[in-house]
Amino acid sequence: MTDRIVIALDGMGGDSAPEMVVGGAVRARRRLGNVEFLLFGDSQRLEPLVRRRKSLAGVVEIRHTDQIVKGDDKPSVALRGARESSMRKAIDAVKSGEAVAAVSAGNTGALMAMSKFVLKTIPGIDRPAIVRSVPTVRGWCCVLDLGANVQCSAEHLVQFAVMGEVFARTVLGVERPTIGLINIGIEEIKGHEEVREAAAMLRETPLPITFTGFIEGSDIAAGKVDVAVTDGFTGNVGLKIAEGTAKLIASLLRDAFRSSWRARLGYLLARPALAVMRERTDPRYYDGAILGGLNGIVVKAHGGTDALGFSNAIGVAAEMAVNGFVPKIRDDFERLKSSTMPASDQEPVA
Amino acid sequence: MTDRIVIALDGMGGDSAPEMVVGGAVRARRRLGNVEFLLFGDSQRLEPLVRRRKSLAGVVEIRHTDQIVKGDDKPSVALRGARESSMRKAIDAVKSGEAVAAVSAGNTGALMAMSKFVLKTIPGIDRPAIVRSVPTVRGWCCVLDLGANVQCSAEHLVQFAVMGEVFARTVLGVERPTIGLINIGIEEIKGHEEVREAAAMLRETPLPITFTGFIEGSDIAAGKVDVAVTDGFTGNVGLKIAEGTAKLIASLLRDAFRSSWRARLGYLLARPALAVMRERTDPRYYDGAILGGLNGIVVKAHGGTDALGFSNAIGVAAEMAVNGFVPKIRDDFERLKSSTMPASDQEPVA
Repeated sequence: MTDRIVIALDGMGGDSAPEMVVGGAVRARRRLGNVEFLLFGDSQRLEPLVRRRKSLAGVVEIRHTDQIVKGDDKPSVALRGARESSMRKAIDAVKSGEAVAAVSAGNTGALMAMSKFVLKTIPGIDRPAIVRSVPTVRGWCCVLDLGANVQCSAEHLVQFAVMGEVFARTVLGVERPTIGLINIGIEEIKGHEEVREAAAMLRETPLPITFTGFIEGSDIAAGKVDVAVTDGFTGNVGLKIAEGTAKLIASLLRDAFRSSWRARLGYLLARPALAVMRERTDPRYYDGAILGGLNGIVVKAHGGTDALGFSNAIGVAAEMAVNGFVPKIRDDFERLKSSTMPASDQEPVA
Repeated sequence: MTDRIVIALDGMGGDSAPEMVVGGAVRARRRLGNVEFLLFGDSQRLEPLVRRRKSLAGVVEIRHTDQIVKGDDKPSVALRGARESSMRKAIDAVKSGEAVAAVSAGNTGALMAMSKFVLKTIPGIDRPAIVRSVPTVRGWCCVLDLGANVQCSAEHLVQFAVMGEVFARTVLGVERPTIGLINIGIEEIKGHEEVREAAAMLRETPLPITFTGFIEGSDIAAGKVDVAVTDGFTGNVGLKIAEGTAKLIASLLRDAFRSSWRARLGYLLARPALAVMRERTDPRYYDGAILGGLNGIVVKAHGGTDALGFSNAIGVAAEMAVNGFVPKIRDDFERLKSSTMPASDQEPVA
């Protein structure tokens, strides 16, 4: 194996595709050096964009596709009907081994359905989950599921915890990540049955993971744990509430700095310091959600992302590939299977 | 009826009670003028605090209670065992008509259980919900349920929508509030069964309410609707995620302003303008969540609140009483009952 990393890009997914995809490749190449790309999509639109960027010469191979998965296509329809789409072809390239990972800013439901169909889930995992890291006062926290599964059993939540732990080790480099289960209070009696049962299972898991118990919504940004686990409904709504809150504060801050000449001057002086803060709260700087639990790496960038955000999503994909995200999860689930839990998955003892 | 408004205060509930309760009464009295208080709790602790505040002379009646509901008491235990507590006595005062509303910063579960037992729900409402307003770029949005009901049927969500609509009219003064149902996407096919069914019911409701369909988590802070409806699990986690995000940004902002002499100077200049922003994002300025759907007004202040936050919770209670929150909800549910929905609640037509 060489140091060369080939990543498959869905050239047509996302509101600002294909321009931002090519722009993202340029930025990623500048930052990571050794990445190369298989770029799927309409070659008539892609070729001039790539040709214009000297840094992409010799490191991008364009593969023409005619079909496009639209943002409002139903996952089942995309799965059956869009086999020749840029999205599907990018995933196929991971399956065939041509690429180590695929990145798309397209329709999340379709991406999940296609990835699951093509790559299949790792043995022991029923459902893939969407996982990504968000900023905290101490650093970063991996949160899952961010919307792949609207209803989750206790077993699913336990599987998410294991996946999240590997994600935190791989992407954040935390040696022994702490895991919290999101609930409406930290007392054992709080919450619905699934969340209480999942907590009981995690307390008794034979895996060497550090489960700290229930956490509340505010504990994520407070940096209380490295991994925060919840169902896809709560996770998706919560992530978007956080994004909305950050935008609201940014807008109030802008208004405040514009409200008087004193404030304007204050802004000019504080500007360089504020830029650092902005980086920590601007979602483009931590774009790139993994579809975790698959036999392959698929990264979803925000649908409304730009070249900066897309390049960060490529960065996540590269890191996952280099650090062996998939084999690490597979190992953990092998161990889980050969231990006493979950009972339903066990082979009868001879 | 005179202009005098009597509010019952749980003097012992909350992390900083009883000091912040008395301090809150002082601030509320200053702002509202015509409020008077029945203050329940340990008279040995309360009397010196009240005596010290001249503005409270003649407007506070202390009623001694020995029992205290603790923060980690189970609701069922508090309901059976704490009949002589400051919390219970404050609710009893609403039932007896001595007070128009009760305010407590104590144990939410116990407050809900006691309030439901003493005041009962309004006919047509199965379960009370916790509702409160949060800041948006355009003004305010009422969000419910914030944690009373961890699992909700479609019917419950519809009832919350009606309650929230009345809350928005009463507290925010919006004439025709728009209502959104929180989901993981705005398309009709998104989400779990309960949320899809609730949307279908709301689209067909005979009540003159303005249902705008599904909204995403980010739409709350974006000010897309006046009322955002969700189950108590998602609402509670979401509210706390928003609070955590605001705290994180405040902390990053503090760090930024302290990072250089230039930034410090900038802060000093922008300070007055930033104070306005802080008021909009400091949860103390919008403390006071209503336990909606009861035959009486009970307001919950944040457990960790201070005198400022508690005074705002008293303000919410006073506003609800003056503007007839309870009779308005009762009217709406009367109308709902006499119409065609929900079918299960209907009297057979003769």
